[in-house]
Amino acid sequence: MTDVNTRVVLARRPDIYPQNDDFAISRVPMPQVEEGMFLTRNLYLSLDAGFRNWMNESSGDNVLPAMALNEPVMGLTLSRVIESRNPDYQEGDLLMARFAWEEYSLGGGDEFIVKLPSDLKYPLSYYLGILGDTGMSAYFGLTDVAKPKPGETVVISAAGGAVGSIAGQIASLMGARTVGISSSVEKCQRLIDELGYDACINRNSTAGLRAAIAAECPGGVDVYFDSVGGETLEAIIDNLSQGARIALCGSITHYNSDGPATGPGNLFELVTKEATMQGFMTHFREDRYPEARQQLEAWIESGELNSIEYFLDGIESAGIAFCDLFSGRNFGKTIVRLFPDDQG
Amino acid sequence: MTDVNTRVVLARRPDIYPQNDDFAISRVPMPQVEEGMFLTRNLYLSLDAGFRNWMNESSGDNVLPAMALNEPVMGLTLSRVIESRNPDYQEGDLLMARFAWEEYSLGGGDEFIVKLPSDLKYPLSYYLGILGDTGMSAYFGLTDVAKPKPGETVVISAAGGAVGSIAGQIASLMGARTVGISSSVEKCQRLIDELGYDACINRNSTAGLRAAIAAECPGGVDVYFDSVGGETLEAIIDNLSQGARIALCGSITHYNSDGPATGPGNLFELVTKEATMQGFMTHFREDRYPEARQQLEAWIESGELNSIEYFLDGIESAGIAFCDLFSGRNFGKTIVRLFPDDQG
Repeated sequence: MTDVNTRVVLARRPDIYPQNDDFAISRVPMPQVEEGMFLTRNLYLSLDAGFRNWMNESSGDNVLPAMALNEPVMGLTLSRVIESRNPDYQEGDLLMARFAWEEYSLGGGDEFIVKLPSDLKYPLSYYLGILGDTGMSAYFGLTDVAKPKPGETVVISAAGGAVGSIAGQIASLMGARTVGISSSVEKCQRLIDELGYDACINRNSTAGLRAAIAAECPGGVDVYFDSVGGETLEAIIDNLSQGARIALCGSITHYNSDGPATGPGNLFELVTKEATMQGFMTHFREDRYPEARQQLEAWIESGELNSIEYFLDGIESAGIAFCDLFSGRNFGKTIVRLFPDDQG
Repeated sequence: MTDVNTRVVLARRPDIYPQNDDFAISRVPMPQVEEGMFLTRNLYLSLDAGFRNWMNESSGDNVLPAMALNEPVMGLTLSRVIESRNPDYQEGDLLMARFAWEEYSLGGGDEFIVKLPSDLKYPLSYYLGILGDTGMSAYFGLTDVAKPKPGETVVISAAGGAVGSIAGQIASLMGARTVGISSSVEKCQRLIDELGYDACINRNSTAGLRAAIAAECPGGVDVYFDSVGGETLEAIIDNLSQGARIALCGSITHYNSDGPATGPGNLFELVTKEATMQGFMTHFREDRYPEARQQLEAWIESGELNSIEYFLDGIESAGIAFCDLFSGRNFGKTIVRLFPDDQG
C-alpha cells in the first residue's frame, strides 16, 4: 500500500460560484491507526451541491460546522475499511460516511456513518446515488413532504441533476404529470427521452420563466420540488394551484450568495392558495432509510427506475466535478471514482 | 326609513399605507328591491387589514377581484334583512356577508353570506369578531395549521390586533407559551395584562428584532403565527426551532407594497430546520365554521377566552378605522357600528 494520502483541501472560500482554484491537492503521510480508530479506502466520492453551504466562513446552521481553510473538503464517500482497531468496524466493511475528499480516511465511529450490508445487489456506486442520500432526498421529498396525487402536475427544478433525475422518475411512478426545469434545450430533450419527463422548461428561454411555467402547467403547479430557490422559486409561487405543496430540498442560489439573499417577494400567494412550503433533510430520517431503500430497489428491480450516473476518475478531479454541478454541465449523479480499478 | 344610502367609496388607490383621503363619502338613493333580491340594513362593519390587498389596481389573486375606483369599498358586514323578494331570505334574518361599506345593501344570494341563527347567545358584534372570520382565522391557523403542542413557544405578530388578540389566547389554551410582537412598550404591557401573553416583544425596540426574539425564545420559535410578513418574518425564520411551523395568515407588509416586495432571504433555514410554512384562508373552510364556533363559544362560556373590541360609530368613520389598523392604533377587533342605537 502507498504511504501517501492524497486529499483535496479548501484553498479559498468560493465567491458566488465555486471555481477550480478554490480547491488544491495536498499529499500527506498515511495516518497511523491508533487504538479505537479504523482506516478506510474511499472508493467513491459523492459530489453534492449542498456542501457548498459549509464552504462559507460561517455555515449559519446547525447541521454541519463551516469547513476550515486548507483542511480537506468534507463530503460523502463510499469506503471500505482496510484496517481497524475499533471493535465495531471490521476489515472489509463497506460504509457510506461523511468523510473528506481524500483517498484514505481515519474514522473513530462518531462520524455520520451508515454501514452497508455485505451482500449488495447493485453496483456500489448506487449506494451513494439512487440508493444513498440522493435517492433518499428524492424519495422522502416526494413521499413524505410533497405527496403528489395521481394526475397532479409536479415541477422539478435542476431536473437533470442527481436528486432531480430520480425525483422526476418517482413522481411519474406516483402517477403525476412531471415537468422538469433545466438549463438548455438539449438537456430538456434528454430529460424527456431518458428520464421520462412529460414536459421540460428551459429556464434560459427568452419567453421568461413565469410565462413558460404557466404555459406548461395550465392548471397550475400542484407540487414543486425545489433544489434551486431564488427566481425559479418566485416564478413557481406565481403559478401555484390551490393547496399546492413546495418541498424545499436545497437552494443552489442560496449556496452561492455572498451577501444577504433576496427571497421571493410573493409569499402572500401562499396565503390565497393555501399552499405549503416545507424544508426537509434526509439527514434527520436515517431510521427510515431501510424502508425507502426497499421501495427504491423494488422499482429498480422492475426496471421502472433508472440510475443516471456521471463518473470522473481520480481524487484530483473532485474540484472540477464539484464546479460542474453549478454550471449545469452535470447530468444525473456526479461521482468521482478514486480508484477506477477498485470498484468495490 | 331614510331614502338615502350613505356609503364609502374608494376615491384613490392607497399608496403604501392607506390614508383617510383614499376614501370618500357618497350618498345615493335607496335601491329598489327587484324580484329575487333583498335589502339589508348593515348594523356592523368589520375592518380587516386583508382587504387592503383588493384596493390595488390588480388584486393578483383568485379570491376577490380588485375594487373599482369610486365604487363602494368591499368589506364584511353583519346585516339584518329588512325587505325581501327572495324566498331564501326573510325579513329579520341576520347575515354575515361580504357587502360594501354602506348603510344598506342589496343582495341577490350569490354573495359570500353566512346566515346566523336567530337565537344568538352573544352580542351581535361577536359574530364579526371572535365568532366570525377573525376568530376563525385564529382558530384554524392554530388548530389546523400551526398545531402548537403543550410547552411549545408560539410567537404571534400583530399580537394585539383582531386575529392576534384571539390567537394568543387560543395558543395559551392549547398549553403553549405565548410571545407577542407589538409596536410599543405600552401595547406590550396591555398584551401581557389583558390578553395573558407570557411575554411580549416591542418590534421597535433598539436592540433589533432578531436579538429580541432570540432573547425571549431561547429554545427557538416552535410556532409563528404571521400576519405581517416582511422583516418580522425574516427575523423569525432566523430563530426557528427544529420542526417549526409558520402559519401565514396575511401580510400587512405585502398589502402596502407598491413595487415588488422583498421576501425573506433566509428560506434555506426552512431546509436545515425542516420547517413548514403554510398559508391559509378561513374562506375555504366555511363548512367547518360550526365546529370552530362551538369550541370558541365553550371557551367564552367558561371565561377562558375574551373578546376585545374597539368600536367606532357611523359609516363616516370607516376610513379612519381602516387606516388605524396599519398605524398600530387599534387594539382587538375594530368594528364600526353603523347604527349605534340599533345593535341587533
